[in-house]
Amino acid sequence: MNDIITMDHGSGGEVTARLIDQLLRPAFQNEALDQLGDGAVLPNFAGELAFSTDSFVVSPLEFPGCDIGKLAVCGTVNDLAMCGAEPKWLSLSFILEEGLPMSTLERVVASVAATAKQAGVTVVTGDTKVVQRGKGDGIYINTAGIGQVVAKLSPAHIQVGDGVLVTGPIGDHAAAVMLARGDLGLYARVESDCMPLHRLARGAWETGGVRCLRDATRGGVATTLNEFTQHQSFGIRLWEDRIPVRPVVRSVCEVLGLDPLYCANEGKMLAIVAPDKVEQVLEQLRKLPGGEEACQIGEVTSDFPGKVVLRNSLGAHRILNKLTGAQLPRIC
Amino acid sequence: MNDIITMDHGSGGEVTARLIDQLLRPAFQNEALDQLGDGAVLPNFAGELAFSTDSFVVSPLEFPGCDIGKLAVCGTVNDLAMCGAEPKWLSLSFILEEGLPMSTLERVVASVAATAKQAGVTVVTGDTKVVQRGKGDGIYINTAGIGQVVAKLSPAHIQVGDGVLVTGPIGDHAAAVMLARGDLGLYARVESDCMPLHRLARGAWETGGVRCLRDATRGGVATTLNEFTQHQSFGIRLWEDRIPVRPVVRSVCEVLGLDPLYCANEGKMLAIVAPDKVEQVLEQLRKLPGGEEACQIGEVTSDFPGKVVLRNSLGAHRILNKLTGAQLPRIC
Repeated sequence: MNDIITMDHGSGGEVTARLIDQLLRPAFQNEALDQLGDGAVLPNFAGELAFSTDSFVVSPLEFPGCDIGKLAVCGTVNDLAMCGAEPKWLSLSFILEEGLPMSTLERVVASVAATAKQAGVTVVTGDTKVVQRGKGDGIYINTAGIGQVVAKLSPAHIQVGDGVLVTGPIGDHAAAVMLARGDLGLYARVESDCMPLHRLARGAWETGGVRCLRDATRGGVATTLNEFTQHQSFGIRLWEDRIPVRPVVRSVCEVLGLDPLYCANEGKMLAIVAPDKVEQVLEQLRKLPGGEEACQIGEVTSDFPGKVVLRNSLGAHRILNKLTGAQLPRIC
Repeated sequence: MNDIITMDHGSGGEVTARLIDQLLRPAFQNEALDQLGDGAVLPNFAGELAFSTDSFVVSPLEFPGCDIGKLAVCGTVNDLAMCGAEPKWLSLSFILEEGLPMSTLERVVASVAATAKQAGVTVVTGDTKVVQRGKGDGIYINTAGIGQVVAKLSPAHIQVGDGVLVTGPIGDHAAAVMLARGDLGLYARVESDCMPLHRLARGAWETGGVRCLRDATRGGVATTLNEFTQHQSFGIRLWEDRIPVRPVVRSVCEVLGLDPLYCANEGKMLAIVAPDKVEQVLEQLRKLPGGEEACQIGEVTSDFPGKVVLRNSLGAHRILNKLTGAQLPRIC
């Protein structure tokens, strides 16, 4: 294969076919993909489907704990898991920039394959396009995913008194990406928390009492919870001193003037849980990899209808609106 | 809304929400999309699923007969139809370049909505990302689609003696895009053939005798048919004087040094059909919109195993290999 991606790799002809045969097919070998038709014909299915998609434009392409390939699998797998579904099949579509080193693409493809394996999903169909230099930024990825719905979750089930849980410290992903950009003059070791959340999601809903789940990606915990309270008769009160943030992440955020509550996470799940099940769900989450630091960070309340508020250690409340602008562009 | 796309539209916060609420949700209103969760939960399903994806990077974004929105729907709908599936659900993901006029996005979204309606598919989930100026090219779109398999089609069913059919003149899409780029000093009126092929596909397989279907997109008829013959004990012989090409498209191709057999189509279906069903399938196709000029252009033969060959009016044969490079970059 060439050392770099050329426009020919996007032609749909011989050079595209070589890329598929030498790099993509071996990485994802499975029966559906091997048909190499215009799409994949999947095994028989009965039940409710969950369907989700995300495009990924993170910059840089690789950073501590993660890369755009891992992110692209986790992003869609997690969206499916948050719908109460077992993720099953993934599509994988690349928009490559002419001049991309082939070695970068190889690493990203390997990362997609390893993460898909970890998440128990099969990459069954895909596409590759190439754009001229200066019309892209190395690699953009889209994944779409199909899952089988096994748990009935919905923000419509939320009730006053429910607990708000998070599976671990927040802000790691955003801090890792910001540091990796290297233009801040800051040096600290922070790894992205990016991971597939399907096991934690299943652990939660199998325990019972789970109203709904959401991963706190773009916009962070504050924006995500606002989607639950908007236009509702209840509010959410977060307890500032119970929100887990790693000291190094807190320092990075302070230097950059960022609020960890608005920072993207890629491996943290928020769960709204019936009050009598909060302890059991926490216990279950803490047994699972990536859930060891799960804790309750707040409650659903009738006090602030439609709002998310933060109560500090002195008992004062501050309203947390949705993120308005792009605090951190191209974080995923 | 703003007049142009800003980085804030990709933040996942308030500005993204406004874009969704004011532009995207109204355009695609349906129950699954209105859940506005991380993914869509779809109605109960039983049977075999077809799953396909494509990213679209066509330049320019709009050209006679088509735009990137229409193309993005047809591309995935057609891939599903070629698998023998009825297209049902679509995901829609945008990568927008900062500075894109909002009016352009509005036209493209309207085009996606109109084409989805025409194709009988529902847009149930989506995503929007924004990249900085000079890191994209206005709009890139990814669609993924789910269909229900109703016909068993496969290149493995092809037999010597089968007919090779096409639903109409070839090369229109590529010629329309090339002319629209305007840097050729050529002025001719050619419209892209872009259209959803699900009705033609269904018409063909319901008539019977259809071995497999394929839309002749990137790489054109010659490259697509090579995918059928590669590593096989049969070949395909095309009859040069039976291949329909509009005079204006032939002229444009001649000026540009292009071969219509390698030019992308976005609304032309190739069908490999059992010899005793060729006439019936053609008759059925000709009754349907977009199939009026359907004809047989060749046959499956034992003469040239693994090859696609073109027989000219003098009886001489020329091998048609797969397209090697990018004859026409960013054609879809």
